[in-house]
Amino acid sequence: MTRFELFNSIKAKHSYLCVGLDPDINRLPQCVLDCEDPVFEFNRAIIEATSDYCVAYKPNLAFYEALGTKGWQSLEKTLKAIPSGIFTIADAKRGDIGNTSRLYAQAFFEYLDCDAVTVAPYMGKDSVSPFLDFPGKWVIILALTSNEGACDYQTLQVADGSTVYQHVIEKSSRWGSVEQIMYVVGATKPDELAEIRKSIPHHFLLIPGIGAQGGELRKISAAGFNENCGILVNASRSIIYASSGEDFAAAAGREAQRLQAEMEVILRNSKASRQ
Amino acid sequence: MTRFELFNSIKAKHSYLCVGLDPDINRLPQCVLDCEDPVFEFNRAIIEATSDYCVAYKPNLAFYEALGTKGWQSLEKTLKAIPSGIFTIADAKRGDIGNTSRLYAQAFFEYLDCDAVTVAPYMGKDSVSPFLDFPGKWVIILALTSNEGACDYQTLQVADGSTVYQHVIEKSSRWGSVEQIMYVVGATKPDELAEIRKSIPHHFLLIPGIGAQGGELRKISAAGFNENCGILVNASRSIIYASSGEDFAAAAGREAQRLQAEMEVILRNSKASRQ
Repeated sequence: MTRFELFNSIKAKHSYLCVGLDPDINRLPQCVLDCEDPVFEFNRAIIEATSDYCVAYKPNLAFYEALGTKGWQSLEKTLKAIPSGIFTIADAKRGDIGNTSRLYAQAFFEYLDCDAVTVAPYMGKDSVSPFLDFPGKWVIILALTSNEGACDYQTLQVADGSTVYQHVIEKSSRWGSVEQIMYVVGATKPDELAEIRKSIPHHFLLIPGIGAQGGELRKISAAGFNENCGILVNASRSIIYASSGEDFAAAAGREAQRLQAEMEVILRNSKASRQ
Repeated sequence: MTRFELFNSIKAKHSYLCVGLDPDINRLPQCVLDCEDPVFEFNRAIIEATSDYCVAYKPNLAFYEALGTKGWQSLEKTLKAIPSGIFTIADAKRGDIGNTSRLYAQAFFEYLDCDAVTVAPYMGKDSVSPFLDFPGKWVIILALTSNEGACDYQTLQVADGSTVYQHVIEKSSRWGSVEQIMYVVGATKPDELAEIRKSIPHHFLLIPGIGAQGGELRKISAAGFNENCGILVNASRSIIYASSGEDFAAAAGREAQRLQAEMEVILRNSKASRQ
């Protein structure tokens, strides 16, 4: 999917919501546990209830790998159940030496046919480049994450006065175009988000951390918007676990719709959707 | 497996060799391609031919994930085919926010029952800690990797005069004990390896990059040894692709034996195996 198509989808749906598909087997409602493939049935129902309100889905690989081969089967079926035209992100945080990253790229871009994959930058350019060889596919590089541990290394001050995450952005943004690279920036850090937006005005940003992790939608939108909206805001647990009962899908749909409605107002009051 | 048991295995086999199980479907010999599960058949033969000469196996997850569900099945079967008493490392380079890392830990330590998993440190303490909650299991943190891209961020100079990778080691070594944490240090950087060994005298180091990547065994052993040997040296491609013909397993066995014999001499001439 191109940046233009993604922006068109945002404008059509008045939404920049990404729904995280993180189905923890220990938190699934009783009513799906009797199905042959509870994870897939849960996801299928969540997708059906939320697909009108979001522009992207982001399955987190850990939740599938914890179930081994069966989990991978559920993941494959889940990706096929996502309506076409919705952006799909494999949240995998991969990254390895070149010949290995090439295989991860094949796994996510060819085998699973996702639009994007999240990548950890620690191993540098040759660990990221193989993902950039796939036309029409996206690499989403971790820059400043939403968790506490982001302060351990990402915000470390480098000799020139900047930080490690600023170096990650500055250097890696030259490895590919704004049609190929996005960055992960946590919703819990709106001031840094605004500063990152200034340094890379045209890149899309994937912003996790609203809902369960506490980021505020209005503040982060103001900080992150660019002329093409330029942000995808992810919510996982606050949507998919909105109810633990039989009404889990309906509750997820209501929560996704609530966020979409909030986004619609924010978009209307900004310049971000007027292109 | 405890550190004591790992050292005993090294002494018994006169070897600190780790064999990387990275079966690229495009490089497998013709004779296994007709099998129902070529990746597993290839691995099974490699394991049978090399298990006398190595103390660890390290399947790299990318090579299995590139084949999707079928790849995961091959991985599970491969791990079951490894004789007990041999250390198993899931080379996965994972790392995510806490609740997600916990699920990765379950995938590798419980579902696949590996002894160790490689972890990328970019997301900090709470992305690594969940892996440390599993008694008898090991976290192998990326410090200074063997690839070119290691120079992009790992060797970046921090404000206090040290480097990012030194910070990674210094800080993360306080998150767990020497019975839980190892570090990845590339064989291509013997000077830095010697300096790292000084800063963490007691940790095991996993050293990839000999063979195909060009590191020299004698030099890195001298730099990396401690009183308990303290290093696992990995070779992947130079062993498993030693021959592309029907004799691939025998050739792999010969190459593993050659490395083991070299290690035996190095061990004999050092203090590393005299405890």
